[in-house]
Amino acid sequence: MYFASDNTGPIHPRILDALARANTGYAPAYGADPLTVEVVQTLREIFEAPEAAVHLVATGTAANSLLLSTGTAPWQTIFCSRVAHIHEDECNAPEFFSGGAKLTLVETVDGKMTPEGLVAAIEAEETRGVHGPQRGPVSLTQATEKGTLYTLEELRALSEVAHRFGLPVHMDGARFANALASLGCSPAGMTWKAGIDMLSFGGTKNGLMGVEAAILFDPARSMEFELRRKRGAHLFSKHRYLAAQMQGYLEGGLWLEMAGAANTACQRLADGLRNAPGANLMFRPEANIVFARLPRATHRRLFEAGAQYHLSDDTLDGGPEDAPLAARFVTDWSAEPAETDRFLSLL
Amino acid sequence: MYFASDNTGPIHPRILDALARANTGYAPAYGADPLTVEVVQTLREIFEAPEAAVHLVATGTAANSLLLSTGTAPWQTIFCSRVAHIHEDECNAPEFFSGGAKLTLVETVDGKMTPEGLVAAIEAEETRGVHGPQRGPVSLTQATEKGTLYTLEELRALSEVAHRFGLPVHMDGARFANALASLGCSPAGMTWKAGIDMLSFGGTKNGLMGVEAAILFDPARSMEFELRRKRGAHLFSKHRYLAAQMQGYLEGGLWLEMAGAANTACQRLADGLRNAPGANLMFRPEANIVFARLPRATHRRLFEAGAQYHLSDDTLDGGPEDAPLAARFVTDWSAEPAETDRFLSLL
Amino acid sequence: MYFASDNTGPIHPRILDALARANTGYAPAYGADPLTVEVVQTLREIFEAPEAAVHLVATGTAANSLLLSTGTAPWQTIFCSRVAHIHEDECNAPEFFSGGAKLTLVETVDGKMTPEGLVAAIEAEETRGVHGPQRGPVSLTQATEKGTLYTLEELRALSEVAHRFGLPVHMDGARFANALASLGCSPAGMTWKAGIDMLSFGGTKNGLMGVEAAILFDPARSMEFELRRKRGAHLFSKHRYLAAQMQGYLEGGLWLEMAGAANTACQRLADGLRNAPGANLMFRPEANIVFARLPRATHRRLFEAGAQYHLSDDTLDGGPEDAPLAARFVTDWSAEPAETDRFLSLL
Amino acid sequence: MYFASDNTGPIHPRILDALARANTGYAPAYGADPLTVEVVQTLREIFEAPEAAVHLVATGTAANSLLLSTGTAPWQTIFCSRVAHIHEDECNAPEFFSGGAKLTLVETVDGKMTPEGLVAAIEAEETRGVHGPQRGPVSLTQATEKGTLYTLEELRALSEVAHRFGLPVHMDGARFANALASLGCSPAGMTWKAGIDMLSFGGTKNGLMGVEAAILFDPARSMEFELRRKRGAHLFSKHRYLAAQMQGYLEGGLWLEMAGAANTACQRLADGLRNAPGANLMFRPEANIVFARLPRATHRRLFEAGAQYHLSDDTLDGGPEDAPLAARFVTDWSAEPAETDRFLSLL
Repeated sequence: MYFASDNTGPIHPRILDALARANTGYAPAYGADPLTVEVVQTLREIFEAPEAAVHLVATGTAANSLLLSTGTAPWQTIFCSRVAHIHEDECNAPEFFSGGAKLTLVETVDGKMTPEGLVAAIEAEETRGVHGPQRGPVSLTQATEKGTLYTLEELRALSEVAHRFGLPVHMDGARFANALASLGCSPAGMTWKAGIDMLSFGGTKNGLMGVEAAILFDPARSMEFELRRKRGAHLFSKHRYLAAQMQGYLEGGLWLEMAGAANTACQRLADGLRNAPGANLMFRPEANIVFARLPRATHRRLFEAGAQYHLSDDTLDGGPEDAPLAARFVTDWSAEPAETDRFLSLL
Repeated sequence: MYFASDNTGPIHPRILDALARANTGYAPAYGADPLTVEVVQTLREIFEAPEAAVHLVATGTAANSLLLSTGTAPWQTIFCSRVAHIHEDECNAPEFFSGGAKLTLVETVDGKMTPEGLVAAIEAEETRGVHGPQRGPVSLTQATEKGTLYTLEELRALSEVAHRFGLPVHMDGARFANALASLGCSPAGMTWKAGIDMLSFGGTKNGLMGVEAAILFDPARSMEFELRRKRGAHLFSKHRYLAAQMQGYLEGGLWLEMAGAANTACQRLADGLRNAPGANLMFRPEANIVFARLPRATHRRLFEAGAQYHLSDDTLDGGPEDAPLAARFVTDWSAEPAETDRFLSLL
Repeated sequence: MYFASDNTGPIHPRILDALARANTGYAPAYGADPLTVEVVQTLREIFEAPEAAVHLVATGTAANSLLLSTGTAPWQTIFCSRVAHIHEDECNAPEFFSGGAKLTLVETVDGKMTPEGLVAAIEAEETRGVHGPQRGPVSLTQATEKGTLYTLEELRALSEVAHRFGLPVHMDGARFANALASLGCSPAGMTWKAGIDMLSFGGTKNGLMGVEAAILFDPARSMEFELRRKRGAHLFSKHRYLAAQMQGYLEGGLWLEMAGAANTACQRLADGLRNAPGANLMFRPEANIVFARLPRATHRRLFEAGAQYHLSDDTLDGGPEDAPLAARFVTDWSAEPAETDRFLSLL
Repeated sequence: MYFASDNTGPIHPRILDALARANTGYAPAYGADPLTVEVVQTLREIFEAPEAAVHLVATGTAANSLLLSTGTAPWQTIFCSRVAHIHEDECNAPEFFSGGAKLTLVETVDGKMTPEGLVAAIEAEETRGVHGPQRGPVSLTQATEKGTLYTLEELRALSEVAHRFGLPVHMDGARFANALASLGCSPAGMTWKAGIDMLSFGGTKNGLMGVEAAILFDPARSMEFELRRKRGAHLFSKHRYLAAQMQGYLEGGLWLEMAGAANTACQRLADGLRNAPGANLMFRPEANIVFARLPRATHRRLFEAGAQYHLSDDTLDGGPEDAPLAARFVTDWSAEPAETDRFLSLL
C-alpha cells in the first residue's frame, strides 16, 4: 500500500536488460557512442522533430535547470506556477544555473497557469528600462504537481501568450509519459505543435534509474546547452548507460505502457477515494496523482494498517478525528492491483 | 588494442548483479534507503573514519566541484597543479560551483606539486588585504593525470604546507583505487592520516557506470555539501542505484581487484614500450597510465593496425617519420592481455 | 513643480563644502584615510553602537545587496515585501550578489509586512530537508516604498518573528532619515533596539551625490562584507570623498534637517491633495512620498502646467476624463515651498 | 615625498568647480540628464567613434569587470598578463561578474604580453570540445602595471592575434591618459584603430574622485552592459555628478595636462634614481610609474626621512644593508616638484 511517491519504485526489468546488453567492450565516452546516437535519433522520430537537439542527463532538476538557463540572462525572470517543482523543490537550482535569474509566480488554478494569469504576471514585470528584472522564459509542468493536465488548447493558449511577448516556453515533463498516456495525443502534439520550445522529458519517475532527455526543438542553442551541462558536472563519461536506459524505455512503447499502468492504478485509487465516507477529491486526477481529503480517523486507520502516503499540510496529531486532512497519493508503473485493492478495502 | 581512456570500458558483471539485486519493491528516495545507509557505513569502515560524511554523486566533476566549493568562499583561490583535471577538463565547473573562485596553478614535476612549489604559490597569493584573492583549498590528484603517484611522505608534506597556512586539502581520487593498489597502503593512510581533508573517491573510471563518493573526513560541513548537491541537481531520487553500484564495487574488494588488473595491464604495456626501438617513457608509470614517445612511423603502424590511444600534443601528419611523438596509453580493469600482447608484438 | 523623485535633486551646499575641505594633499586609499575613520566613529556614536561595522558604498542597491548577501547562502530565500525595492527595482542585484538566493514575497498592507504575513511566508518555506530553499534574512524598508512608516512596535514585532526562526533582519533605509525625522525616535531605537541586525543607511536620496552607509550592528561578518564589497567593485580608492560627503551629511544634524524639509514639503502637498476635488490619498503619507488618485482631467491640467510626477499604473490617454488615476508624488530636501504652492493652486 | 600611489591624491580644482556648476535644480536620474548626454558625446568625439557605447561607472574594477563580462560566457577564459590588475588586485571581481569565467595568464615581458606569448596561451587553451574552458576576450593594460607602454605596433600585433582567433580585445586604461600623453598619439589611434574593442577609460587615478568611462566601440552589446551595470549596483541615480567630473576632466584637455604632469614628475624621479649609487631601474619608465632596486640602506634612509612608497616583494628588515630591494614609485598629477627634489637630494 505504497502511494508516497513515484521516485521510489524499481526500474522495469527491460531497462536492466538494456543495461546488460549495452555492457560489452569499449564505447566512446561523453555521448559519442553509437547507442547515444541511436537514442537521440529515436527521440527525434518520436517527436517528429528531425532537427531537435536532444541531450541526456540523470536528474529532472538538471534537465529543468540546464534548459531554463540556456538562452536566459541572469537579469531575467522565469514565469512559473506557484506550485512548480522548479520553485518549490529544487533548492534554488534554477537560480544557480541561470546565474541569479528570478522566478515570478503566476496565479494557478488546479495546479495550472491560466492565460489571463500569465498575461497579468508578464505585464506586471513591466521592466522599467534596466530597473526591474527582464522578462524571461515561461515554464509549465505537464502533468502538473497536482495531478491535473493542460489540454492541448490550454497549452497552445499559454504558448501563444508567451510568444506574443517574445518569450520561449519550457515544459517540465517529469511526468510527460503519464500526461501523454492520459491525453492520448502525440508527443509532437503536446509539445512543439502546441508551442513548446524546450522539454524536460522525464524517465526517472516512470521506471528508469535516473535518466531524462532535455530537448530543444530549435537546436540553435544546442552547443550552449552542452557547455552548461559539462560545466554543471552533468556530462556522463560512460554515457552509454544513460542511453541504454532511454533506449529500453522507448523500445516497443514501454514508456507509455508503464505510464498507462500508473495512470490506471491512480484511477482505481481515485474511484475508491471518491466513494469513501467523508472523503472528497481536491483536483481532477488526470495522471498518476490524486489529492483527497479524508477524515483524520480514516488516515489514522490507513497508516496503522501500513499504508504509505503524504499528508499535504497538516499532521496526524493535534486535531479532531473527524476533521478532513488533505493527502497526496501517487502511483507508479509497478503499483500492484492487489495492494490498491487492500487499500481500498480499508477505506 | 584499446588504450584511449578508462572512461570507456564496460562495468563489471558483479556491478550489474548488484543493480539487479537492489531492484525490488519501493525504497525511500534521496538517499534514505537502507542500501545507501549501508554503503556509507561500509565506506566509513574502509576509511577507518566512523564520523566521516559520505555522499554519492554520479560524476567525478560533481564530486570535485561540490567538495571544493564546500567551505570555500568565491573570493578565494584554489591551489592545484598545472595539469589538474579540475583546471583543464571541467569547463570551469569549480569556478561555477564556488561562485567564481580562482584556480592558482602550482608548478608541477611529473604531474605532481612539490611542497616548495606549493609554498611559493601560496606565498605569492599574498592577499594584500581585500585586494587579491584569498587563499583557499589545495587540491591534488592521486593518481596524477600523468600516471605518477604521490608517496605517503609527499602527501604528508603537501598537507603540512596547506595546514600551516590554514588551508584544507582535497584529493581528486578519480583513480584512487589504482593509486592504492599500487602503493599497497591503507585508504586511511593515503588520506586523512596523510592530512587529506576531503576526497573524491572515484568509481566511474574503475568499473562503475557513474558513481563517485564525496568524503568529508570532518563532517562539520556535511549539510552544506548536501545543499550544494541538491542545488547543483546532483541529488538522485532513486538513490539506491548509486548505492548498489558502490556496494558491488566495495564488496569483497572488487574495487582493488579491478584496479590491480588495470595497473598490471599498464605495467605490461609500459615494459613493452620501454623496450621498443626509438621509444622512451615520459613519466614513471605507477598506476594505469603510461606516457611514451614513439617515432611517428611507429604510431602510424600501430594506428593502421587498429590500436586506439591519444597523441598528446601533436598530429600524425606533417612531420618526419622518425620524429618522436608523445602519446598517452590508459588501461582499465577490462583490458585483455591478448590485446596488449598483440599491441606489443606490433611494437 | 517637480515631484517625480528624490533621486534627482541637487546636493546640499554644505556637502560640496565638505568635499572641498577634504581635497588637500594625499590621503591613504581604500578607506584607511582619517576622514573615513572619523565618519565611521561618528556613525557608531549616532547609533549608540560602538562595535558596529560601518562601511560606505556609493549606491543604495550596493548597500542592500552587499548586506543581504553577507551571511546568506545562495540556497536561502530572502523575505521581503511585495513592493520592496530589492525585488522590483534592482534588476536581480540581490540574486546576483547572493549567488542565486531567492526572494519570497510577503503579503503587504500599505507597503508594510505584517507579523502574521511574515510568519505565514516563513512557515510556507518549510524547507523539506534539502528540497526547498532554506530560510534566509528578512528585509524591510523604512520608510516604505508607499511612503508609510513602521512604528517601533511594528518593527519589534517583525524582528521578533524573524529572530524566533533564527533569521537576521535587514532594513533598507534609503529613506531612513525621512522615517526618523517623522517618528522622532533615536537611530538606535529604530534599528538595533528594535531588533534590526543590518542597515542600509541612505544618503543619496537625501542630499548626497551618492553615498550610503552599510551597517552591521554585529561586526562578526565585517571582513566578509569587505571582501564582498571589493569583489563587487564597490570599494572606492579615493574613499575620502565618500567619507567627506557623509561627514557633511551628519555634521550638525544636516541629515535630519534635510529630511525634515522633505517631509514638511510632503505634508503640505498631501494636505492640498487631500482637499482637492475628486482626489483621495491612497496611503497615509508619513515621510516624503504621497500617493493620490486624481481625475484624469486634473492630471492633464497639472502636466500641461509643467508639473512633474509619475502616474503609478496607467497612462494619461485612453480613458474617461473623470476617471481617477493613481499617482506618486515625492519631495526632497530642496523642494521649494513656492513651487508646492503653485502646484496646489493648480489643484 | 609621496610616491606610494596615484590613488591617493586630491582631485583637480576644476573638477570641484564642475561639480559645483552641475549642482543646480533637478536633473533626470540614471544618466538621462543633459550633462551625461553631453559628456557621452564629447567622449565619442575625442575617440572619433560616433557610434560607440559610452557608460560611466565609479571604479576601475567596475569598468573592467562589466566590460569583460559583457559578451563573455562563464565557461570561457580571459587572457591577460601575469601581472594584470584584473588578476592580482580585484578580489576575483572578473570571475564574479562573468559568473565564473577563468583567467589564463599569458607570459609577460616588462609587464607586457607578447604576440608569441598570446598565441601560445590561446593555443594551449585548445578547448577539446566541451571539456576545457572556451577561449574568451584578451585584456591588456595600457600603461602597464610596470609603468611600461605598448607601442601602437605592439597593440596592433596583439589585437591581430586575438581577432585571428575571433576574440575581442579589452584595454584596461586605468592610466590611459598617462599612456596617451607619453606616446603622443590619438585616442582613436591607441584604441579602435589598433584593434581595441572595449576600453576602461580611467579618470580616478588621474585627478577625479571616482569616475571611469566604459567604452564599447561596437555598441551592439550596449544594453547588455547597462543591465549588467544596474544588476551590479553600479548605476548611479544622481548620475550628473559622475558626468560633471568627466566633463571637467575632458574640458580643455585637462586630462592630458594632468597626465603630462604626472609623467614629467616620474621622469624626473627616474632620472634621479637612474643615477643614484647602487640603484638600477627595473623597467623602462614610460608613464607615471618607476620600479627601481636600491640598497636596503638607501631605502632605510629614505623612509626615515619621510618618503612614502612601496617595496615590491621584500621587507626592510631581515637582510644585509647593501642588498638591493625592489621598490615601486608612482607619481600623480599633483606631485610637487619641490618634494621630488627633496627626495632626489636624499638619494
